Amino acid sequence: MEAKIIRLASRPKGMPTLENFAFDAQQMPSPQEGELLLKALYISVDPYMRGRMSDAKSYVAPYAVGEPITGGVVAEVVESRHAHFAKGDVVLGTLPWQTYCISDGSGLNKLPQKVAPLSYYLGILGMPGLTAYCGLFLIGAPKAGETVVVSGAAGAVGTVVGQLAKINGCRVVGIAGSDEKIRYLTEELGFDVALNYKTTHNIGAAIAEACPDGVDIYFDNVGGEISDGVYARINKFARIAICGQIATYNATTPPVGPRVEGTLLKKSALMKGFIVSDYASHFGEATRDLARWVQEGKLQYQEHIIEGFENLPNAFFGLFTGENTGKQLVKVAEPSPIQT
Amino acid sequence: MEAKIIRLASRPKGMPTLENFAFDAQQMPSPQEGELLLKALYISVDPYMRGRMSDAKSYVAPYAVGEPITGGVVAEVVESRHAHFAKGDVVLGTLPWQTYCISDGSGLNKLPQKVAPLSYYLGILGMPGLTAYCGLFLIGAPKAGETVVVSGAAGAVGTVVGQLAKINGCRVVGIAGSDEKIRYLTEELGFDVALNYKTTHNIGAAIAEACPDGVDIYFDNVGGEISDGVYARINKFARIAICGQIATYNATTPPVGPRVEGTLLKKSALMKGFIVSDYASHFGEATRDLARWVQEGKLQYQEHIIEGFENLPNAFFGLFTGENTGKQLVKVAEPSPIQT
Repeated sequence: MEAKIIRLASRPKGMPTLENFAFDAQQMPSPQEGELLLKALYISVDPYMRGRMSDAKSYVAPYAVGEPITGGVVAEVVESRHAHFAKGDVVLGTLPWQTYCISDGSGLNKLPQKVAPLSYYLGILGMPGLTAYCGLFLIGAPKAGETVVVSGAAGAVGTVVGQLAKINGCRVVGIAGSDEKIRYLTEELGFDVALNYKTTHNIGAAIAEACPDGVDIYFDNVGGEISDGVYARINKFARIAICGQIATYNATTPPVGPRVEGTLLKKSALMKGFIVSDYASHFGEATRDLARWVQEGKLQYQEHIIEGFENLPNAFFGLFTGENTGKQLVKVAEPSPIQT
Repeated sequence: MEAKIIRLASRPKGMPTLENFAFDAQQMPSPQEGELLLKALYISVDPYMRGRMSDAKSYVAPYAVGEPITGGVVAEVVESRHAHFAKGDVVLGTLPWQTYCISDGSGLNKLPQKVAPLSYYLGILGMPGLTAYCGLFLIGAPKAGETVVVSGAAGAVGTVVGQLAKINGCRVVGIAGSDEKIRYLTEELGFDVALNYKTTHNIGAAIAEACPDGVDIYFDNVGGEISDGVYARINKFARIAICGQIATYNATTPPVGPRVEGTLLKKSALMKGFIVSDYASHFGEATRDLARWVQEGKLQYQEHIIEGFENLPNAFFGLFTGENTGKQLVKVAEPSPIQT
């Protein structure tokens, strides 16, 4: 039996294509003392991976050409020579795009197998959910009655941000890029207002109308002109969490716009950039809260699961066409029945 | 005997002139029950007052045309019909530009008369000192060994910021606008490096050279291109305190520049605007610390005291010519001998 591998063949220019990926295989590896053999169950595809395919300096190191892509993977221990893991354990880790791989256990987290579907640990109970939780609560610090604006609202992070803000008694305004997403945010997830920035002529005026009491918290996944429209409406002591700037990622020259410092000064406002790993010490508490709200039905969650290891590149491309609502991921193998 | 008054006669366009001020006098006022008669000893002139002379919306309300200018004043109680104040008390308050005035006591703080010269409560122990203390410690949170950059470094706030950062074991780089100021910062106040932005061709490169370990804290009084040069050098988890944006105050169109959000994201950096009154709950502790460091000789402080109530407008104009180093203020009357 072989382990299948997907490597970065070349760095994409603009939109990635299949030519940027190389399909490979190797003999099934065997764990040494202190190592594990892992079988991939679910593999995540996320927007941040596009950045790692370039060699531009960013907050995460670039992928090496010729090496396997890595990312969030839920995997099952099929053979263990490691004291802390047993056959049948399911773990979450940053692992290579391989059907099977060897690990020394570092960076792996054992997952409870009866709390929620295992795939949820790549989404609402994983990196995107933790990003939403930590950014909203640790930077935004929402109070009941405040107004929260979320850009990129229909994404894996934005959907959770808005629902967490609703749980906390806030007015929630989402900004997204299609009428289908707008409908999903207001009708399924309980957002108070959702704006389609692609069909809204004056986004600043639309935000003003949607936020009659101003904006207390802005959770920004997008940046650019959408943000300018929000800044114009912030209240005294507003908090702005900078989670992503996808509107500017493909810019070929440094993005320019109105300077924001004067607004922050007049409003005694805070702006904080972050990456989820900054808040690792809060992950235990965050995961417990998120799991409880999922179980209680307070957090809705939608997945778009594509079957088959070979479809990983296509699933990744799908992130950029914007057609899917919900967390995009690939199912590689069925987990073994839970031992009881 | 009369009380002299200086009123705002008209709103200045560009640089203020004597025509914008009206000299007046009224019969000596007499306090009613619950009121005090105050004699001005020292009156402060500060850059923020220029903003209040315009009717543009800002973080402080504009002065009314025809009304007395108001600002920081150290005054002596010459007659009291108020339970909490006695003749001979010295107070700090936001009071009108008058040689004598009536107060109901609200907003007045009694000053200790033996800790430091009374004029210090308009500077290092007053609003500018508290601004420096609160912005540096409550936003910047400096740790020993970190690098702190201060713009507007030779001003009443910047000189205190840099010295407080030195007391906390930081490397301190100041940015100011004359060689005399640069010399004062490094030779008198102990700044590690000071840069004259008017004679430095590439301020970004100069900041890079002055900060070989990057910038952990940026205390910004100025904004604009100087800030762009600093942002390019910030470290992971940097803190940026936005105290003023004097480089953009006179802009006739909204200032535009490179967007800072991407930098804050990559560096997990914080940017926070503030006005000193946001931190009123810390003023007691801050004033005690500042007074102790002044008494111990750890904080140097330079005043430029102009004599005579009639010279208030000229003292104010002097803020904008940039020729003086140190806190600019006017001495109106000699305090009475301290009762012991």
